[in-house]
Amino acid sequence: MSESIDFEKIFRPRSIAVVGVSNDRIKGAMGFLHSLVRLGYPGKVYPVHPQMKEVLGFKVYPNVSSIPHTVDYAIIGLPAALVPAVLEDCIRKQIPFAQIFSSGFAEIGTKEGVALQEAVVSTARGKIRIIGPNCMGVYHPGARLGFEPEQPLDRGNVSFISQSGGLAMSFIDHVSDRKIGVNKLVSLGNACDLKVTDFLEYLGKDPETAIVSIYLEGLQEGEHGKFFALAGRMTQRKPLVLWKSGYTEAGARAAMSHTGSMAGSYAMWRSIAKQMGMIVVHNMEELVDMISTLRQPPLPAGDNLGIIAFGGGTCVTTTDACTAQGLSVPPLEEEIQRKILEFVPEEGTFRVNPVDLTAWIINPHTTRNVGLLVGSDPKIDALLYVLDVEYIVRQCERLSLDPERLIRGHAKCLADLIKSTGKPIVSVLQKIRDGSLAIAMRAQFQETGVPVFPTVDRAAKALARAGEYRSYLRALETEKAK
Amino acid sequence: MSESIDFEKIFRPRSIAVVGVSNDRIKGAMGFLHSLVRLGYPGKVYPVHPQMKEVLGFKVYPNVSSIPHTVDYAIIGLPAALVPAVLEDCIRKQIPFAQIFSSGFAEIGTKEGVALQEAVVSTARGKIRIIGPNCMGVYHPGARLGFEPEQPLDRGNVSFISQSGGLAMSFIDHVSDRKIGVNKLVSLGNACDLKVTDFLEYLGKDPETAIVSIYLEGLQEGEHGKFFALAGRMTQRKPLVLWKSGYTEAGARAAMSHTGSMAGSYAMWRSIAKQMGMIVVHNMEELVDMISTLRQPPLPAGDNLGIIAFGGGTCVTTTDACTAQGLSVPPLEEEIQRKILEFVPEEGTFRVNPVDLTAWIINPHTTRNVGLLVGSDPKIDALLYVLDVEYIVRQCERLSLDPERLIRGHAKCLADLIKSTGKPIVSVLQKIRDGSLAIAMRAQFQETGVPVFPTVDRAAKALARAGEYRSYLRALETEKAK
Repeated sequence: MSESIDFEKIFRPRSIAVVGVSNDRIKGAMGFLHSLVRLGYPGKVYPVHPQMKEVLGFKVYPNVSSIPHTVDYAIIGLPAALVPAVLEDCIRKQIPFAQIFSSGFAEIGTKEGVALQEAVVSTARGKIRIIGPNCMGVYHPGARLGFEPEQPLDRGNVSFISQSGGLAMSFIDHVSDRKIGVNKLVSLGNACDLKVTDFLEYLGKDPETAIVSIYLEGLQEGEHGKFFALAGRMTQRKPLVLWKSGYTEAGARAAMSHTGSMAGSYAMWRSIAKQMGMIVVHNMEELVDMISTLRQPPLPAGDNLGIIAFGGGTCVTTTDACTAQGLSVPPLEEEIQRKILEFVPEEGTFRVNPVDLTAWIINPHTTRNVGLLVGSDPKIDALLYVLDVEYIVRQCERLSLDPERLIRGHAKCLADLIKSTGKPIVSVLQKIRDGSLAIAMRAQFQETGVPVFPTVDRAAKALARAGEYRSYLRALETEKAK
Repeated sequence: MSESIDFEKIFRPRSIAVVGVSNDRIKGAMGFLHSLVRLGYPGKVYPVHPQMKEVLGFKVYPNVSSIPHTVDYAIIGLPAALVPAVLEDCIRKQIPFAQIFSSGFAEIGTKEGVALQEAVVSTARGKIRIIGPNCMGVYHPGARLGFEPEQPLDRGNVSFISQSGGLAMSFIDHVSDRKIGVNKLVSLGNACDLKVTDFLEYLGKDPETAIVSIYLEGLQEGEHGKFFALAGRMTQRKPLVLWKSGYTEAGARAAMSHTGSMAGSYAMWRSIAKQMGMIVVHNMEELVDMISTLRQPPLPAGDNLGIIAFGGGTCVTTTDACTAQGLSVPPLEEEIQRKILEFVPEEGTFRVNPVDLTAWIINPHTTRNVGLLVGSDPKIDALLYVLDVEYIVRQCERLSLDPERLIRGHAKCLADLIKSTGKPIVSVLQKIRDGSLAIAMRAQFQETGVPVFPTVDRAAKALARAGEYRSYLRALETEKAK
């Protein structure tokens, strides 16, 4: 079915009608109009309002059908009761896609709301395809398309399908903060026509999308089979990270009144999703942690972690956190342990694994040299580098070190480790305050491609899940080879 | 046995000998000397070095016994091999307590290290009490005593016993960031003489300490019975938060080489600890989250949560996170639901619980009015207020609102809710960046006494554990009443 959907017109429309403009900065569809302007959308924009003549320098049309040009996409931000009539106008104008921003449909649970949504569906059927209602629509930096004026235009290879507009916005904030660009994002709301599965199918084939992520409250009746079939095919080629909410009974009740979704049995969801190789997460932090980990190839070849840190307590508790997630922290080869003593001379410090760099952690060369040694152990699959930013700040002050130089040194050390070991490197920057050193360090670490986590627990969880996905892929290969 | 320990001399010594000073800013015991100076320690300080005459303006003594005044406490920062002789000197001088900062004892696992520690123990026995070796010793803002020059001097009612010096430092950073003052803290390292249980017994009786927290790698042989007996008595009067590391096999191995501790079976630990009413946590964040929640009386009377938030997706996922931790999000009384519509007029928004304040969340009066309504429901035991700081920032910009005023309004709203409802209020400030608004908001929220969490999951976990402690206390009362 989605074969016939021209996604190019959704993600790269040549012209957009914005229905529901006004003189109020944030009412109706005005947020969309502002966003198109601010983001520099290069296509044609046609605002629609029965009386207004001009808005933000654009000519305003009294209705959709009076626009004297081809329109690829309509954004509708009007009271729900007015939407069916506007849709008919869009159909007359032969607009192929309409996004309904308005809420007040099935999600409010009243008879009127449900009836209005049914009216939308029956009006549209076979004549125009609908995104929404009750949704934010499309964010596509590559086409300078978005729904918030401040949205970033960095392009990446991560795409996101969301049933929540608010969480879609929050997702963009989060990945942008990690210096991860979004490729395509769609907020679907009630999804009365175009469904999660339609976009899943498209993104599975989209060459620009390397990682697909979803915030899902529930699927439509009858959509489950298609969802799992598509997901199972997708995970053989690209990772699919699923945040399925309503995973508790009370959460499911809430999902019902948000997008009218039947959350379904979460135990069943989880079990099938895992069987299909999806990576299941439970909140925004886990979702973004996971994406940030998957972005750095390669996937770890196994669960054996080499840990480099500072301080006995940190070594003990980091080991706890990692093994609690199912990772292993095996002893390094004795030859490697011996060589580590050339760089961390204190007798009696940890060097079995974790390796305690002691106060020498301040010196990037020590980190690099020890990192290369740990990475050279054939049984180590990934490196975890734990740095206490507050300690570094204090040492810089005390020893009058140049923090800028120190940070550059540590970032370069990570870049060297990535190149030389060919193994995934993951860093944890433990910090209390977003001081200038903490911010600079995180930024420069991220520039190397290394994922940066605020806590060991979050790093361990993401690494463990990346490992599960690797095991899934490997099991598939083994099966195929039979 | 700890009856005979004069803890006053440990936490409020009138005079301190600092053995192992030098001209190097950070070597040996110099960090301690700098700290005493910077923190304004009001007692007498006697640095010791065989050749030096003066350091930081202090007269230096060639050895401990040549100090012509009474000394309550010695801090020793010299190579391990020199420590037993210094101890003998301290005994001659009749110093009752010595803290050995030096490492190189049993924790390094060599024959020499073990022998040196045995020498320390046998030298000291019956003549001087030892804190350490391999430890940072005491931090007591009330006596301007600490081991880092920058340590804060705010006094609070939370005390901490730590087997790790690094985590003790990190603990101080973390609670200070939450505007929580420490009362007394001790880093014990190898604890060859004075033990975790000695300090536990003292803090249990200490009227200045309302919450006791511990980072523990393992106890000495034979110490377990006393530990659990003390803990069981303590939890009847004050909460005891336990972070027991080595909770995985690999973590336990690491603990062995850190402080030479036998971590013991974690399953057994956890089971006994819970039975004794201890609150068990697994990392620094959970520890500090817990303290911040326990500090705000009262404990929630039950597990029923009233949630106030913005956005459908946030309502759904917050409900998930809370119920996943064992909390309940029950429907509000219908009369209350009806009244909420007077303040959040949008039809169809969540008002059953969670309550979606929609875009009105920007208005503190809405939050207060709805909060009072939710809090007035007799079945609601605690309120959770979830605020997306990034959204507030954007709305302030768009609507040209005064952020200062807005923040003050929201903080005042929380203060009003605490006073009027008499129920615990917990807030989540979801933010990406530490912008000025985020920092100010967190600071002002914290000033009201409301715990502020960065994620709903962390808030839910802390609330659920506070609830478990409340259940424990209630079960005790029921038992006593029988």
